[in-house]
Amino acid sequence: MGLLLLCNGGFMGLSAGISAIYKDGATLEIAMAALVTLAAGAMAMLSTKGHKKEVKRKEGYLIVTFGWIVMSISGVLPYLFTDSIPSFTNAFFETVSGYTTTGATILNDIEILPEGVLFWRSLTHWIGGMGIIVLAIAILPILGIGGMQLFSAESPGPSADKLHPRITDTAKRLWYIYVGYTVAETILLQLAGMSFFDAINHSLATLSTGGFSTKNASLAYWNNDPLIQYIVILFMFLAGSNFVLSYFAFKGKIQKMLKDEEFKFYTGFVVFFTLIAAVTVYLKAEVPVSDYHPMILGEAESAFRHTLFQIISVITTTGFVTADFTSWTPFLTVFFFGLMFLGGCAGSTAGGIKVMRHLLIIKNGLLEFKRTLHVNAIIPVRYNNKMVPEKIVYNIIAFLVLYMLLFIIGALVLSFLGLDFISAIGGAATSLGNVGPGLGSLNPLANFDSLPALGKWWTAFLMLAGRLELFTVLIILTPYFWKRI
Amino acid sequence: MGLLLLCNGGFMGLSAGISAIYKDGATLEIAMAALVTLAAGAMAMLSTKGHKKEVKRKEGYLIVTFGWIVMSISGVLPYLFTDSIPSFTNAFFETVSGYTTTGATILNDIEILPEGVLFWRSLTHWIGGMGIIVLAIAILPILGIGGMQLFSAESPGPSADKLHPRITDTAKRLWYIYVGYTVAETILLQLAGMSFFDAINHSLATLSTGGFSTKNASLAYWNNDPLIQYIVILFMFLAGSNFVLSYFAFKGKIQKMLKDEEFKFYTGFVVFFTLIAAVTVYLKAEVPVSDYHPMILGEAESAFRHTLFQIISVITTTGFVTADFTSWTPFLTVFFFGLMFLGGCAGSTAGGIKVMRHLLIIKNGLLEFKRTLHVNAIIPVRYNNKMVPEKIVYNIIAFLVLYMLLFIIGALVLSFLGLDFISAIGGAATSLGNVGPGLGSLNPLANFDSLPALGKWWTAFLMLAGRLELFTVLIILTPYFWKRI
Repeated sequence: MGLLLLCNGGFMGLSAGISAIYKDGATLEIAMAALVTLAAGAMAMLSTKGHKKEVKRKEGYLIVTFGWIVMSISGVLPYLFTDSIPSFTNAFFETVSGYTTTGATILNDIEILPEGVLFWRSLTHWIGGMGIIVLAIAILPILGIGGMQLFSAESPGPSADKLHPRITDTAKRLWYIYVGYTVAETILLQLAGMSFFDAINHSLATLSTGGFSTKNASLAYWNNDPLIQYIVILFMFLAGSNFVLSYFAFKGKIQKMLKDEEFKFYTGFVVFFTLIAAVTVYLKAEVPVSDYHPMILGEAESAFRHTLFQIISVITTTGFVTADFTSWTPFLTVFFFGLMFLGGCAGSTAGGIKVMRHLLIIKNGLLEFKRTLHVNAIIPVRYNNKMVPEKIVYNIIAFLVLYMLLFIIGALVLSFLGLDFISAIGGAATSLGNVGPGLGSLNPLANFDSLPALGKWWTAFLMLAGRLELFTVLIILTPYFWKRI
Repeated sequence: MGLLLLCNGGFMGLSAGISAIYKDGATLEIAMAALVTLAAGAMAMLSTKGHKKEVKRKEGYLIVTFGWIVMSISGVLPYLFTDSIPSFTNAFFETVSGYTTTGATILNDIEILPEGVLFWRSLTHWIGGMGIIVLAIAILPILGIGGMQLFSAESPGPSADKLHPRITDTAKRLWYIYVGYTVAETILLQLAGMSFFDAINHSLATLSTGGFSTKNASLAYWNNDPLIQYIVILFMFLAGSNFVLSYFAFKGKIQKMLKDEEFKFYTGFVVFFTLIAAVTVYLKAEVPVSDYHPMILGEAESAFRHTLFQIISVITTTGFVTADFTSWTPFLTVFFFGLMFLGGCAGSTAGGIKVMRHLLIIKNGLLEFKRTLHVNAIIPVRYNNKMVPEKIVYNIIAFLVLYMLLFIIGALVLSFLGLDFISAIGGAATSLGNVGPGLGSLNPLANFDSLPALGKWWTAFLMLAGRLELFTVLIILTPYFWKRI
């Protein structure tokens, strides 16, 4: 925890630097936040100096969950000290939304914020994304959570080709890719005409599948710059794919990527869903050309680009917006609501249920027909041409059931707090899946400021539970966890 | 099939008799429908006289699915011949809604129909209910569908106490209970002040958890007769509970009913949910006393009765209405939407996912925490104090996944046909769960006539798939089914 705080303080210092460069008048306050965080980190480190370094299994869950909470609590300081977000509830919501890479905001006017604070806001996404890579690759498989063992054991392919076994090395290599992609996107966005500041901020928010923008209109600000939007589309797609596959691709083993079952379905979903949505928008959407979103729906390219952008943004749980998908047709509203439950690939920074889990669970469901007809045959689920152990199927099933339970309880609580039906179920789905934009009063053009304070705390909890793959957070609430054996 | 048609013709003859007694002027037409159906049945029987009587496994699925379809096709005749429902699409929808005990109607004015046709309409529910009892007790367990093996093998308790092993005998005994309850409710409703005609119709629709009423206002017609509504509440509750337990209770073994895990949770759900809803309605509902539904929400008894009625009606998938639950509070709309997925007990006439499946799946989900913490322990799910075989857990999981898939596809199709978000997802949930009333434009005070023709066929398909526990219908659509081994 101390180490986390020290890192966080360092990142705040970086934001103070940006603030100083842009002379936004908030440098002192952000530097103060950095110092407080560094001091807290140092104190935590010193006070536990003599303790054993060995981490037991149960402590693992506690470290992950409380790590994210400690980060979120310290992360509010730049908002509070600069008075950018004066209310603690709002600042906490914004920070959790940042670290969980959700991207839902309570800010009504983003563009008046000092550059240093805006940079810090994008940085929370990027730090969260770094955390998730370690979590997905190294920590969750060890903790045995939600079928992630399958990912770690199988995804890199046959054992001879395994990534370097040492966790820190693996994490480092994937971080290089993460950093590399971020730099590449920044350069490309700048070449396409974005300012450096907007380019770096949007890159930080893309690679982490976060969704915070420096513009009130999000990516719709660049609706007359198709190139910029296509660049963002590309990097959202990469951010939602398995980083291990990117690593192999860079090593020249591109066939590993193309043969991966999850990657194939992920790509297939994007293509198939875009086709459906683009044709529907092109033929049916009654939305006129809007002043705020000058998209020309009558044009095929525009229909294609906006649907592709929105679909990748929702599937990868990024949450950038170029158009309000809830205003197209009723069909597409239900459609995008469904997509909120999909999620990106395992081993990416995307949230949600994830393509791998859907694949296994649907395969298992369809095989049941075969099992029903051939009573005595044992018919296991196969994934990437390997048999999936029953234990893992059970694991994924339990994940799915808990996810749906938490979704319905999430929607019930939000509706109890006064949200209407569509906003409540959209809000629960988007928070739990770390997507960002919801439906109804939480539609892509609106923000989460209209939520009552309790609603902000509740959605923050849903974001955290969703981000940490449910079990990590929920297991701490079970009696099993606290029982001595 | 021939035998089914013969029975169906006989029931139509009964309706013609009722028509004659009430001199509604439709006797001849209904008698004609009966004759046509009897003739078709007789022809089918004669043309297959020499065939083998042995039924193979695969033929079982075909018989069940096509049995329901053949019944539905012949069941439209009384509507068409009497011109009560002139359109074939509408008549087919009404008949499928009848046999699947859903209770959704396309009729805008029910009360102008001839008595004979109204009786036939209620009778389709009751015939469907009889079919479901045989299906649940005898056929589905043999076909190995959706965990029903568990029900048939375990629910009646230790093997010494098993119901008579012969299927026909078991079915007969449960039918006695079904008939007995129907007669009892008819008598009680009459004593409480209903006319004989209304009493028998509502009893037929209650015990089958159907939901067709002879009044346009459904049970709200008797909003000033609490006794009548309490009687209906009692019998809806019984109709949604396991009939095998009723059998044991009448044999004096009432402790079997009280100790049954599913029954305990079913009762617990009703009590717990009514408590939540009643308090919410009492404290929060902003609905004024309506002319159409003269309920006094300010009164505690009224809040209690109306919430209890609506909750039991939705959980048991009956669909009778005394008030519009979608008009109470946004929270209760989400709440009732969630209840549409619950369903009654296995071995009842209720539709939906069923309490037993929820219990097993949630138990399994919660046990995953324990399994995650104790990696090497084998921790099976227990139900009624017995270990549940993995095969059955898999079965139930596959059922749930297919149910949710069909729900989301169902909602997508409805929204594609032009329904708004809330109507589309409510319509898919209520059709698949055989409940009856939906949300939005399909709210409890509205009807399904506003659906486009394709929407009526699609919801009829969902009703049928839901009623026959998905697998029976869907397995016929798989390549596995048609492959020779």
